[in-house]
Amino acid sequence: MTQTLRVGILGAGGYVGAELVRLVHQHPRLSLVLVAAREKAGKRLTEVLPGAMGVAGLSELVLEAFEPEQAPGLAERIDVAFLALPHAASARAGKALFNAGVQVVDCSADFRLKDAATYQKWYGEHPATELLSLAVYGQPELHRPELSGARLIAAPGCHVTTSLLPLAPLLKSKLIEPSPIIIDSKTGVSGGGRSPAPAFHYPEATDSIRPYKVGSTHRHTPEIEQELSLAAGAPITVSFTPILVPMSRGILVTAYVKPRAGVTAEACRAAATELYREGLVTVLPAGTLPDTLWVRGSARAHVAYVLDEHAGMLLAMCAIDNLARGASAQAVQALNVAHGWADALGLPELPLFP
Amino acid sequence: MTQTLRVGILGAGGYVGAELVRLVHQHPRLSLVLVAAREKAGKRLTEVLPGAMGVAGLSELVLEAFEPEQAPGLAERIDVAFLALPHAASARAGKALFNAGVQVVDCSADFRLKDAATYQKWYGEHPATELLSLAVYGQPELHRPELSGARLIAAPGCHVTTSLLPLAPLLKSKLIEPSPIIIDSKTGVSGGGRSPAPAFHYPEATDSIRPYKVGSTHRHTPEIEQELSLAAGAPITVSFTPILVPMSRGILVTAYVKPRAGVTAEACRAAATELYREGLVTVLPAGTLPDTLWVRGSARAHVAYVLDEHAGMLLAMCAIDNLARGASAQAVQALNVAHGWADALGLPELPLFP
Amino acid sequence: MTQTLRVGILGAGGYVGAELVRLVHQHPRLSLVLVAAREKAGKRLTEVLPGAMGVAGLSELVLEAFEPEQAPGLAERIDVAFLALPHAASARAGKALFNAGVQVVDCSADFRLKDAATYQKWYGEHPATELLSLAVYGQPELHRPELSGARLIAAPGCHVTTSLLPLAPLLKSKLIEPSPIIIDSKTGVSGGGRSPAPAFHYPEATDSIRPYKVGSTHRHTPEIEQELSLAAGAPITVSFTPILVPMSRGILVTAYVKPRAGVTAEACRAAATELYREGLVTVLPAGTLPDTLWVRGSARAHVAYVLDEHAGMLLAMCAIDNLARGASAQAVQALNVAHGWADALGLPELPLFP
Amino acid sequence: MTQTLRVGILGAGGYVGAELVRLVHQHPRLSLVLVAAREKAGKRLTEVLPGAMGVAGLSELVLEAFEPEQAPGLAERIDVAFLALPHAASARAGKALFNAGVQVVDCSADFRLKDAATYQKWYGEHPATELLSLAVYGQPELHRPELSGARLIAAPGCHVTTSLLPLAPLLKSKLIEPSPIIIDSKTGVSGGGRSPAPAFHYPEATDSIRPYKVGSTHRHTPEIEQELSLAAGAPITVSFTPILVPMSRGILVTAYVKPRAGVTAEACRAAATELYREGLVTVLPAGTLPDTLWVRGSARAHVAYVLDEHAGMLLAMCAIDNLARGASAQAVQALNVAHGWADALGLPELPLFP
Repeated sequence: MTQTLRVGILGAGGYVGAELVRLVHQHPRLSLVLVAAREKAGKRLTEVLPGAMGVAGLSELVLEAFEPEQAPGLAERIDVAFLALPHAASARAGKALFNAGVQVVDCSADFRLKDAATYQKWYGEHPATELLSLAVYGQPELHRPELSGARLIAAPGCHVTTSLLPLAPLLKSKLIEPSPIIIDSKTGVSGGGRSPAPAFHYPEATDSIRPYKVGSTHRHTPEIEQELSLAAGAPITVSFTPILVPMSRGILVTAYVKPRAGVTAEACRAAATELYREGLVTVLPAGTLPDTLWVRGSARAHVAYVLDEHAGMLLAMCAIDNLARGASAQAVQALNVAHGWADALGLPELPLFP
Repeated sequence: MTQTLRVGILGAGGYVGAELVRLVHQHPRLSLVLVAAREKAGKRLTEVLPGAMGVAGLSELVLEAFEPEQAPGLAERIDVAFLALPHAASARAGKALFNAGVQVVDCSADFRLKDAATYQKWYGEHPATELLSLAVYGQPELHRPELSGARLIAAPGCHVTTSLLPLAPLLKSKLIEPSPIIIDSKTGVSGGGRSPAPAFHYPEATDSIRPYKVGSTHRHTPEIEQELSLAAGAPITVSFTPILVPMSRGILVTAYVKPRAGVTAEACRAAATELYREGLVTVLPAGTLPDTLWVRGSARAHVAYVLDEHAGMLLAMCAIDNLARGASAQAVQALNVAHGWADALGLPELPLFP
Repeated sequence: MTQTLRVGILGAGGYVGAELVRLVHQHPRLSLVLVAAREKAGKRLTEVLPGAMGVAGLSELVLEAFEPEQAPGLAERIDVAFLALPHAASARAGKALFNAGVQVVDCSADFRLKDAATYQKWYGEHPATELLSLAVYGQPELHRPELSGARLIAAPGCHVTTSLLPLAPLLKSKLIEPSPIIIDSKTGVSGGGRSPAPAFHYPEATDSIRPYKVGSTHRHTPEIEQELSLAAGAPITVSFTPILVPMSRGILVTAYVKPRAGVTAEACRAAATELYREGLVTVLPAGTLPDTLWVRGSARAHVAYVLDEHAGMLLAMCAIDNLARGASAQAVQALNVAHGWADALGLPELPLFP
Repeated sequence: MTQTLRVGILGAGGYVGAELVRLVHQHPRLSLVLVAAREKAGKRLTEVLPGAMGVAGLSELVLEAFEPEQAPGLAERIDVAFLALPHAASARAGKALFNAGVQVVDCSADFRLKDAATYQKWYGEHPATELLSLAVYGQPELHRPELSGARLIAAPGCHVTTSLLPLAPLLKSKLIEPSPIIIDSKTGVSGGGRSPAPAFHYPEATDSIRPYKVGSTHRHTPEIEQELSLAAGAPITVSFTPILVPMSRGILVTAYVKPRAGVTAEACRAAATELYREGLVTVLPAGTLPDTLWVRGSARAHVAYVLDEHAGMLLAMCAIDNLARGASAQAVQALNVAHGWADALGLPELPLFP
């Protein structure tokens, strides 16, 4: 008999939460029974997610408030909690739920960094440092063994996923020099969240491309370096530049690295294909370049490599949907792996095209 | 034991075909076994639908050519054929497949008009007039009884669906005068198909709103009138204006009609709610206006009514995704109903939001 | 010797103000010497208008605060004040400046409505009712004689301009029945102003078409009716529906009216061509339909007519740039006319294309 | 008395030509008297540029055909010819016109490369190699002295301009190492020209970011290297990657270079400010990052520098409008300089904002 897990989504009012609602709703082994959103508590889910109007099983849900002390009660209603909360709040909620026996998939940055000092430098005091070593980094293709049975999963963010997937195989297989690693990450506006702000006001975000938090000052820089260092088996430093582009969903990374002598693009594709034998990463064939439109709404990532023989550089590229593969779909994929299910179970592998 | 139908998609290289691939792929009772596209025959499906790269069951498919005389052979490989072909070609393919015993869901206009003379006026000679009376108009909410067991289904187009859904309940329930019925239908660019043309060239389609085929000269006008007349039980004439707007997917209709004396918006909502008890139409509550973003990628339609007391008019509105509810998802919904399955089986009810 | 007027822009921090800066800067008879913006007072102009960085004559300007009691002092520094302020605040500023001898061009609604009671119903108490009869409605093509020498000009808004230009010739020439007049007005997002809000948040405004303030409840309804009644010489009631579309600039009106017996589209074009002999309105030839892209950034309006013989309706259309012809450029055009200059003096007649 | 030059635009049917029409029309010393477009010859200008409908001086112009042998006749009608033609055709036209005594501003690549062999490698046989040494590279800020009195000007392309402006000061002032120089250039879709193609079809260009011609295989690579080598006084090799982003106009370059020991961002700004004392380049102050929206439609370029201390890299950035500063406006600016006029004469320095 097929078991169904009862799921709660905390932070259902934002974009990551909305995407989780979409994905959990169509998942054959998950059943959405609880949605919470502090500031919107008491409203119907359909007020923050009008697309749910009329949908059986969703249109009746009412957003609840959640305080960590309610965790034991919640543990009787849900088996799994997805957290789409601000940092620190997420750690507090995650700790309480984890201790109450709920399986936790955290979409914030709170359990991603292994080093508490690094967390403190970039985010402030960590509310639950004792859990940092327990949490499993939820990039299924790179942490598959640890994810098996994991009860506390730190789902990676969008810039990090798009950076890791093309670069990890190169570092693991020693195909590139450890420096320089230049990451130019172009992200859609939904990555900035759902709160209106001048930077995301339609008339000023359309026809606008602009860098922000440049010079490796973006908070995701240490997370990228942690995971790349793990892949390389040695400390890695990156130069990371995020750039806002006028579209709603999608991230494209173009990373510039120095290939070791004799390394070909074909060798890079072979290393990636081998590393991603299992999972939801497509290594594009020679001659095909990635396009964010091809993964919009999908759980899959597209990775590609081109050798710049003229300049002696290697171009490593990746396209994902920042809210799907870059957040919610990857969180569900990690849960799938934790339960021994197929990576793709219940997840859209095809994009909404066009 | 659950039966699975083997599905072929003819015309898989265009947008309606691509959307059918997405929907059939995630449908629990349908299995995609054949894709055809005349000009692209011999290429892999992934060449016209790069999002399918790496997806098990799709990445191996090769586009076939199809000529009507191959229908008997095809009948041994597929149970259902979705046709996303140009008009006339669709009728020829549909006739051959239907006669060979394949269940046919036609997404072209070829089997929608009941009157061969009307077809001839707008489209030219009909290649299979003998089938016009056999074909069932595939708007599930309005033709549910006839759809049961139907073997030849004419799936409606996007402008028509968005026009019918808000107006049919008003005419059926005699809530409005039969004239004037003014339909202002704003459509996304994907409705123009996949062939590049100046009108759809990105730099000239962005920041551009423009009417086209105005003055009730658009081919979908007679289809709208056929179905509204059926709902009204009397001949209906409409003034229909399509307008191109700068977005990929979505249609919004604002229809202006004259309410009968004393009719309220609440009465309109009640009539629509009753008519759409079954199916995938959401009647929006008072105070909520439709938004194409809320149905992007979804099979649901959103319908709303507002009384303009100042001018003595009634505003009837509808938002759908032109490729999903306006084409491919409605075609699958019709197939679901034909087989006695739930309307929503395998269909996305939640939008890709944002 | 060529006289140059010293210009001040009050409310330079918003979009209408920004567009005024652009237009005044390139005008050969106007010199921008003062910019004010209450909440941003003390900042440089370049902080609210970064495109002015490095531009001689603009990059040094500092935003000032302005209170009506400062009007006499201001009168020594400027000859003309453009007001791009919220309603009521605009009337107070306008009154003080007008009384101090400054020529005032008000871009708010404060001096547009001739009837104080109507103003009060839609906006609240009017701070300067005694000026309502003095103010000249600043639609140059329709109020040219009164504009000559005008010292207080009420520049019309965007929805109103797009509605009046195609309909006024029809009513003046008695080519249509006075009812129904249905106006479906599709506007770009910049019409909502510069303050971030959920409705204008990029991820929710892109791929989104949605009606708002429907049922003739939009504040511009009485202004449209005032001016159409003037053109008709009889009271006119309209059904007005504004619709938000995903682009930054532009408005397209499709208006549906009943033609008098025997009226042709050609007759409509002739009437409009005659009425717009002078000015910046282009009447499109038969077969050409308007496109907002063709007027983006331009001071010109495009007007077109099509007879719907099938339904016995007439379609009157107009496309403008909501910030240019729909606000700031029309304000400058009105000032040009007030001074006896050519309508187009200093104004861009060509769009930014594409 | 002010002299006015009679101007012809060859290739007026494309986007660069359309932008030239806009700019020449509003230029006080230029008068547009001739437009040509081979495939559209015989049509009115308004058929390819509908925004010109109703504009005095433009609406009457008819597109002519032009063959090089007509040059002597043309020389009696025009003083200056702007060429917006395909490569090779441009060289042939330019040669004939130049020899007939017409001043030529060529917007193609034909006279940009000084080395005929390099031209041949990337474009094929050059039809007028004898003129390569005569042509002046039309980047006014970098070639001001040579431009004075120039009769044959090679106006630079968009990717090149955006790459040169931020990097030239660094190389001239020896602030960076000569290698690596990584240029990630994100361009709007209008850069691809006006011919419809699948890559630029609206539904597939929106929500799409994608690299193209990667690995330094883009034709503009040698032109970038020629000009950077000139600035450096030594051969420079770059790694150049163009990326298509979903907007109509605009280019943003993020270039990654290695700073010499002790170099600060402030030193880079100082070098650029000094180099760009004259001209239309704005060096953004510390803390301000470039945005394509701030230069849309403007002749100005925005340049910025940030030191990535973490990774030991320097980020050099530039934003321009690809059709304005990246093509047509820069061509006019070069003509201005050739005639000893102010760089900005007749050019829009403010953007269309928003």
